[in-house]
Amino acid sequence: MKEIEGGITAPCGFKASGVHCGIKRNSPDLALIFSKFEAIAAGMFTINKVKAAPVVISQKKLRRGKARAIVANSGNANACTGKKGFENANRMCKVAARELGIDPQEVLVASTGVIGEQLPIEKIEEGIKAAAKNLSSQGSLNAAQAIITTDKKIKQIAVETEIPGQGKKKVKIGAIAKGSGMIAPNLATMLCFITTDACITLDALKEALRIAVDKSFNQISVDGDMSTNDTVIALANGKAGNKTIKTWKRKPTLRIKDENFDIFCKNLEYVCAYLAKEIVRDGEGATKIFEVKVEGAPFPKDARRIARKIATSNLVKTALAGASPNWGRIMAALGSAHTKVKLEKVDIIIEDIQVVKNGEAAGAPLSELRKRLLKNEISIVVKLNQGNCNSTFWGCDLTEKYVKINKRYL
Amino acid sequence: MKEIEGGITAPCGFKASGVHCGIKRNSPDLALIFSKFEAIAAGMFTINKVKAAPVVISQKKLRRGKARAIVANSGNANACTGKKGFENANRMCKVAARELGIDPQEVLVASTGVIGEQLPIEKIEEGIKAAAKNLSSQGSLNAAQAIITTDKKIKQIAVETEIPGQGKKKVKIGAIAKGSGMIAPNLATMLCFITTDACITLDALKEALRIAVDKSFNQISVDGDMSTNDTVIALANGKAGNKTIKTWKRKPTLRIKDENFDIFCKNLEYVCAYLAKEIVRDGEGATKIFEVKVEGAPFPKDARRIARKIATSNLVKTALAGASPNWGRIMAALGSAHTKVKLEKVDIIIEDIQVVKNGEAAGAPLSELRKRLLKNEISIVVKLNQGNCNSTFWGCDLTEKYVKINKRYL
Repeated sequence: MKEIEGGITAPCGFKASGVHCGIKRNSPDLALIFSKFEAIAAGMFTINKVKAAPVVISQKKLRRGKARAIVANSGNANACTGKKGFENANRMCKVAARELGIDPQEVLVASTGVIGEQLPIEKIEEGIKAAAKNLSSQGSLNAAQAIITTDKKIKQIAVETEIPGQGKKKVKIGAIAKGSGMIAPNLATMLCFITTDACITLDALKEALRIAVDKSFNQISVDGDMSTNDTVIALANGKAGNKTIKTWKRKPTLRIKDENFDIFCKNLEYVCAYLAKEIVRDGEGATKIFEVKVEGAPFPKDARRIARKIATSNLVKTALAGASPNWGRIMAALGSAHTKVKLEKVDIIIEDIQVVKNGEAAGAPLSELRKRLLKNEISIVVKLNQGNCNSTFWGCDLTEKYVKINKRYL
Repeated sequence: MKEIEGGITAPCGFKASGVHCGIKRNSPDLALIFSKFEAIAAGMFTINKVKAAPVVISQKKLRRGKARAIVANSGNANACTGKKGFENANRMCKVAARELGIDPQEVLVASTGVIGEQLPIEKIEEGIKAAAKNLSSQGSLNAAQAIITTDKKIKQIAVETEIPGQGKKKVKIGAIAKGSGMIAPNLATMLCFITTDACITLDALKEALRIAVDKSFNQISVDGDMSTNDTVIALANGKAGNKTIKTWKRKPTLRIKDENFDIFCKNLEYVCAYLAKEIVRDGEGATKIFEVKVEGAPFPKDARRIARKIATSNLVKTALAGASPNWGRIMAALGSAHTKVKLEKVDIIIEDIQVVKNGEAAGAPLSELRKRLLKNEISIVVKLNQGNCNSTFWGCDLTEKYVKINKRYL
């Protein structure tokens, strides 16, 4: 695997564009992604009961497993907007389909921004027309620019790997993302659009996406809140010409894994983990990212719960903001995670310094630890020593600036 | 019911004291509470897996249902302190028992403060001796002072009610509490000690305490984190001479409620709710308290989950800090609460202004709402309109100062 340039337009047969249509005052606010060829599609969405209209619509369309275009706007979430909101989201799909000469069923839609306001649909219609005209096989950066909100950085990546076909075939995966608060219904929410020219079955694409999202976007938190608009969509048009990737070589009788599925998964995980960490790093007000690695849990859910609890604890997050070696907060978060782990076996290591041994203070040199906590990437390893299950979760510190950003809006 | 002076020493037969023994630099750090007479006792404790030594010890002793004294220190949580921590906590009980001339089994212990450091047990021993000498039937305020940490205010209350005995008998309930972060293992944690001269069965005392705590201390959050040391203890010495309060008049055959139990419960709830709200109001960095009242849920747990989710959302809390009328955050928090409520029936009213009607924007006058949000007590009412279950939860705003307080410590 190697990283390459080009984002979502790196894979063969994809075009993209981003334009300013007037939802936001100055910056680009409408993105269009298009596959010149038929493509299969899979998606994952927020599990919030309050789902924005575009989430409900895209989720429904994806039951067909096919899509060729994504139209996405920033600056307005189209959530809690009732019937009108659905009409507007459908209208976005219809206009895009007309401009692209495809079926509206093949167009997915996503929105991010403020909750409870109606979209300025006329402006958006004009925007979609302009975006369709501007579609380009170098358009990834423009699309990435048009979906961000409070993000300080544009987030895109592409990778290339070899998967056998007739000879070795180069398979590419590209992706763009936005996100700054896990939720900040004003101007945040997490979106990620993935394109690939891999030839892959729908089952395998769905499964690979589920695995990759579970290890990346489902393992990050900026503020622990859950959005109404979170959307991850992957389009695969098969143009790389590789041998079709399947989850199993032959199923269900002979459950031998397709080794190309593993290769594809590894690449997709790399892409998603990169973007997930970029989102955390760009978290509202964040000055540092930290990784919580929980090892040796009896069950996977124990590892996940503990990693998540530590990474989302306001007290752990404020301690890190102040480079405070206050490991008691990590231990308290661990204990509140509703698991049955034995505490007397727990070791905790922060930046290579062991602070807890067998559930008790390890007598760590706190002044040295304080120095190491001044870094902007912090590692916390929790060894439970009572099983083989692991989980990694990424969080960012909680600063005065986070409060400031979220106090002021609206 | 009426509020009276005197805190935990208002009920007949209780003495208390608070002294400085040197755990903290200057302020009082050791409290002693004593019933001159035999007393029954009930307690509720943190459900964190990581429990401080005094929590484990007091919990175990309370299985007997009897206790006459509580010794409590601030400035050190005696948590994650291993075998030595247990020895020290037991030593506190033994010294107190010796000074008071009672059995060590009748002495409960509680601690609050930094995690992972051993108690300065010699200083504490001297402190207990001094506290025993200083015991006074006007000592409630001193005891209340000695258990606070980052609290800005001392928290105490007492109430008096009439319950029949031979003639009407005056029954008193007094309580002191501390708490500023739900957890802040440095110098916070929630403690509450309740005394009463009511004559009551152990079953009734336990049940009344469970009901009152569920409606008060279990319904508040400052930062959503859970302490290793939370402790609520109630002592009842029966000296009021009222007819013994029971949960049921005769059980199990004739399940008629004892109306005096209801009176006692109402009084105890009043005491606990007062202190719970005082804790939130005194939350680290808080400038305002808000009440989330969820009404009309199909099941009690739906009401509770939604109320809790809204009150602990960082985004709701920062919005309130900034007097931002950002009701979308309340709706998003509601949707993420893992319930099956129908969103299209939801109404939300903030400070008497309806912001959501049938799950959609109600077109509220946001500039007027912004003005009302400048108050320091905010009411949020969520009407689910799909059942009869209600829940009330109290939270405080999240400010830059909260971050500052928690960045700096240790």
